[in-house]
Amino acid sequence: MGLFKSKGVVYRPVKDVNLCSDSTEFYIQANVKAPRMTGILVKVFTWFLEFPIFGALLLYILKGNNLIHKLITNAELEESPLYVPSHHFEDHKEKEVKSLDSASTPQEQVQLALECLPPSSEKAHNGTNPSFSRWTIMDYSRAYSSGDITPLMVAERFITAVDESSESPLPMAFFINYNPEDILRQANESTLRYQKGEPISVLDGVPVAVKDEIDCLPYPTTGGTKWLHKERPCKDDACCVKRLRLCGAILVGKTNMHELGVGTSGINPHYGATRNPYDTSKIAGGSSSGSAAVVSAGLCPVALGVDGGANDYMNLTDKSISVGSVRMPAALCGVVGLKPTFDRVPHSGVLPLNWTVGMVGILAGTVEDALITYAAISGEIPSKQPSSMVFKELSIRDIKLAKYGKWFDDCSDDVRLCCSHALSNLQDYYGWKTIDITLPDIEAMRLAHYLTIGSECSTWFDSFGEKHVAELGWDARVALNIYGGFSGKEYIKAQKLRNRQLKFHKRIFAEADVIVSPTTGVTAYSIQDDALKTGELDYVNGAALVRYSISGNFLGLPAVTVPVGYDKLGLPIGLQFIGRPWAEATLIHLAFAMQAPLEESVMSMI
Amino acid sequence: MGLFKSKGVVYRPVKDVNLCSDSTEFYIQANVKAPRMTGILVKVFTWFLEFPIFGALLLYILKGNNLIHKLITNAELEESPLYVPSHHFEDHKEKEVKSLDSASTPQEQVQLALECLPPSSEKAHNGTNPSFSRWTIMDYSRAYSSGDITPLMVAERFITAVDESSESPLPMAFFINYNPEDILRQANESTLRYQKGEPISVLDGVPVAVKDEIDCLPYPTTGGTKWLHKERPCKDDACCVKRLRLCGAILVGKTNMHELGVGTSGINPHYGATRNPYDTSKIAGGSSSGSAAVVSAGLCPVALGVDGGANDYMNLTDKSISVGSVRMPAALCGVVGLKPTFDRVPHSGVLPLNWTVGMVGILAGTVEDALITYAAISGEIPSKQPSSMVFKELSIRDIKLAKYGKWFDDCSDDVRLCCSHALSNLQDYYGWKTIDITLPDIEAMRLAHYLTIGSECSTWFDSFGEKHVAELGWDARVALNIYGGFSGKEYIKAQKLRNRQLKFHKRIFAEADVIVSPTTGVTAYSIQDDALKTGELDYVNGAALVRYSISGNFLGLPAVTVPVGYDKLGLPIGLQFIGRPWAEATLIHLAFAMQAPLEESVMSMI
Repeated sequence: MGLFKSKGVVYRPVKDVNLCSDSTEFYIQANVKAPRMTGILVKVFTWFLEFPIFGALLLYILKGNNLIHKLITNAELEESPLYVPSHHFEDHKEKEVKSLDSASTPQEQVQLALECLPPSSEKAHNGTNPSFSRWTIMDYSRAYSSGDITPLMVAERFITAVDESSESPLPMAFFINYNPEDILRQANESTLRYQKGEPISVLDGVPVAVKDEIDCLPYPTTGGTKWLHKERPCKDDACCVKRLRLCGAILVGKTNMHELGVGTSGINPHYGATRNPYDTSKIAGGSSSGSAAVVSAGLCPVALGVDGGANDYMNLTDKSISVGSVRMPAALCGVVGLKPTFDRVPHSGVLPLNWTVGMVGILAGTVEDALITYAAISGEIPSKQPSSMVFKELSIRDIKLAKYGKWFDDCSDDVRLCCSHALSNLQDYYGWKTIDITLPDIEAMRLAHYLTIGSECSTWFDSFGEKHVAELGWDARVALNIYGGFSGKEYIKAQKLRNRQLKFHKRIFAEADVIVSPTTGVTAYSIQDDALKTGELDYVNGAALVRYSISGNFLGLPAVTVPVGYDKLGLPIGLQFIGRPWAEATLIHLAFAMQAPLEESVMSMI
Repeated sequence: MGLFKSKGVVYRPVKDVNLCSDSTEFYIQANVKAPRMTGILVKVFTWFLEFPIFGALLLYILKGNNLIHKLITNAELEESPLYVPSHHFEDHKEKEVKSLDSASTPQEQVQLALECLPPSSEKAHNGTNPSFSRWTIMDYSRAYSSGDITPLMVAERFITAVDESSESPLPMAFFINYNPEDILRQANESTLRYQKGEPISVLDGVPVAVKDEIDCLPYPTTGGTKWLHKERPCKDDACCVKRLRLCGAILVGKTNMHELGVGTSGINPHYGATRNPYDTSKIAGGSSSGSAAVVSAGLCPVALGVDGGANDYMNLTDKSISVGSVRMPAALCGVVGLKPTFDRVPHSGVLPLNWTVGMVGILAGTVEDALITYAAISGEIPSKQPSSMVFKELSIRDIKLAKYGKWFDDCSDDVRLCCSHALSNLQDYYGWKTIDITLPDIEAMRLAHYLTIGSECSTWFDSFGEKHVAELGWDARVALNIYGGFSGKEYIKAQKLRNRQLKFHKRIFAEADVIVSPTTGVTAYSIQDDALKTGELDYVNGAALVRYSISGNFLGLPAVTVPVGYDKLGLPIGLQFIGRPWAEATLIHLAFAMQAPLEESVMSMI
């Protein structure tokens, strides 16, 4: 108490806060002060932070400079803390959506998903801009079934392509581990099944990559480190991987990621910086960098990532925070990214880098493929969520979109123009209504989220003691040092803010079906050589990358990003829809609906 | 990291831990080292703790000495954190229990409770030891209805009695505030209703006292302090008070409590030490000290308390923890104490001294009165708990009791003999089965609970800043100083332990209906003069008082205590049943069942 204590914000009761567009609530823009740091500067900063007493003092000043004291630690608000964003299923049942019996198999769920595809799905895919075109799950399935190609041929081509992509001078660094023998073995088995005319599902023989944060035999799970797999051997497939295997998918290896998910750039000092297939001098985003890039490059139609596994030091020392670790790299690499509701996909076999904000997510070339994969991996949910769901019918129905203008527009000109254009096309095409709203305390939510994911991540890391600190990259060292510095009181205050934000979002979802925003504030930025070994502390870009991702992770809401265009350099831009709890069907429905106006828009531009 | 870091316990996976009586799990006895402190010693200890740096170091050493580092901070365990002990209602529906429509009024619920009373209830009451006999709700109701007495007569007698009890040399310190005019006004209205032959319910005209942690007009809510009501004016009745008022009960004032609920003794430096009606030189227990004492003294048949509002500095510096703040004073004062499942009674209008462990509870002279009051105040639950419940039929059915011998026996000889005797009477009378079990990590659970309630309480207290620190009693200052010293990582670890304990308890409740234990490890101890102004740090007694209360608060489980006898000095002893989530009906059923064998036992002793 006392020492340097600064005054905290007094938050008004939720019921007194105006959520309409004429609200007087301030929108605090991220006020980035700290310089970009790499190399020796990062090391010095780390040493200072690790120094006893002085480090604590420095931490204190840093927190103060970055509004944490004002917006969280010393803030006053009446809401009680909310700890786990678990949402009661019965409260949120979607209309026009079929709940699956929880006893159904992944194959059955995939079959049901196929029956639910909108009639326009195939046509839409064939009509899109050629640069979006990659082989879809159905392309593989049809080609295998017709006998034109075999899974074995695909596996061989895949191995050659990965080998080529790893070569100097510009290795793409897609994978941390992949095992040609294991891939060929799986491909052989699948080929035999097709020869017998007995493929398991449309996923049979389809190559799927898995982020190295998710257990997948025969690979170790490194989490992007050089040591974690020694402490925690991988003994079994994660639940989601198991389900894909049951569908006949070929698990083609473990994709690269930001070390321990503590960053957004995907620059890994041990396994290389994953490069963006749209421009190899640019980042792929992170932490699910490799998963986004392999799908973008057309190596796999889908890959698994973890959304919310990423959490970055940058969030404290400036105004950025690295979340949305599926959606953000998906947007940067021009693919579809789906983050399901918290608890929708079983956590088992995923590194517990945090407990309350992360969720397995899907990166896919098309919405259709995201849906098929989602159907395969969701399920085996704890009893509180009685069943998984796919879609009875994806008819175009009336959808209300909520948009917070100041937040929506807080991005680069290219992103703003592109996303606004895509949104008005959507509105014009379907006649859907957009409601202007105010989402208060977005910056406070970001800080509270950072404090939460940071405390959780460092709690997890502490189990391994100090012995591996020296084996970490410098940016991860900085991150983990700061993460551990929060008090219990700060953590609890953050959970109070979390409850508050949930209440705000519930009110908005009483009026609108989804919240719409850009997926990122900027497009992929350049990889600089000095960052390759030490990592980097790039505040401005980091903040802009994750600006729109927080609520999906912190509140456990489902969200989807779809590519809607390019910036002047030809780098992809994504549009995001954030949905009600358990409303994945609405999100996928919307993502499908995006295709028709996009097509027309693309056509009209040609 | 590094500095003094001690090694933590490595917890085995839950599935590998044996819960049977032949388990090799250690039972760590509370290892009390610190001396009893009062007066100037407490002040010096406080000053040291409040001193910068030195205080932090001291805190660190204290934590280390008390196994917190070993059992929590540095411990390794695989369970994910659990934050709120909210239990899914559908998972735990009781058999033979009727769920009420959530739209029913308090009066309707009370009526239903009356219809559910066991046939033996009245007889049992009349047959008990005369020293247990007090006027019950039904006694009042019958006397009012017959016109023998009026609520006004009772109110006048009540006011006289309270005035007499407040006189020197030994003021009982039952109440912090009571307003004769307001009491007489309510009594007048009730008297008129009876004259018209229109009483609202059996509670009409019945005096009910309310702990000064619960809002009740026209009184301020002091929380046992001299300042809190100035910061937080009481503007409305708490939900539970509102419901009692709807039933016609006379709210007779705000009972004394341990300051801010941060202690177990009920020694309040501002409003006096509440004295035990069985022996005025002894404590009444706490923090709901006044509520237990007024019921014990026969001033009211029932009173409201808060169980889990209490949380004591003692828990850190020694091995005690002050929870069970309804059950513990109930046992010490020889009355029935009922703590419902977390979330069963609405929290609104109760001081948020913590968010995840506290619950409004009932202190009553008889089980019947506890049931009637419970029926009145439960309800208006958030949607996830669809309805409140009372009892369709309280027939004597087969009940399995779980008993952890080492824990059960960790109490004074008198308590152990008395509780064992009561338990075997129960078994003999009904032929019920007792299963011997092991409850691992009880000490770790206590520390984790302390860390949780401490962090939450200091988070709440921080909202008022430092300006009131000097107005606190010395023991509260010590408590609040230590409470705020935990890190976010520690808080999260504690939640992991919480989840782990819940899993243990779930496994036990798969085999048994209730866990049985003494309610306290010792009976009421002496109030010493030197403690009256500064409070005291009495470790040994504090630890023993709350030994059996933790799981009710930390895991949100319902629990009931019933008086089962006296120690050699004639001080009451309570036996506790801890139930499954939402199983209040089973607990009350058991409490009723206790009466028959107790009667016979008492008869056989005469």
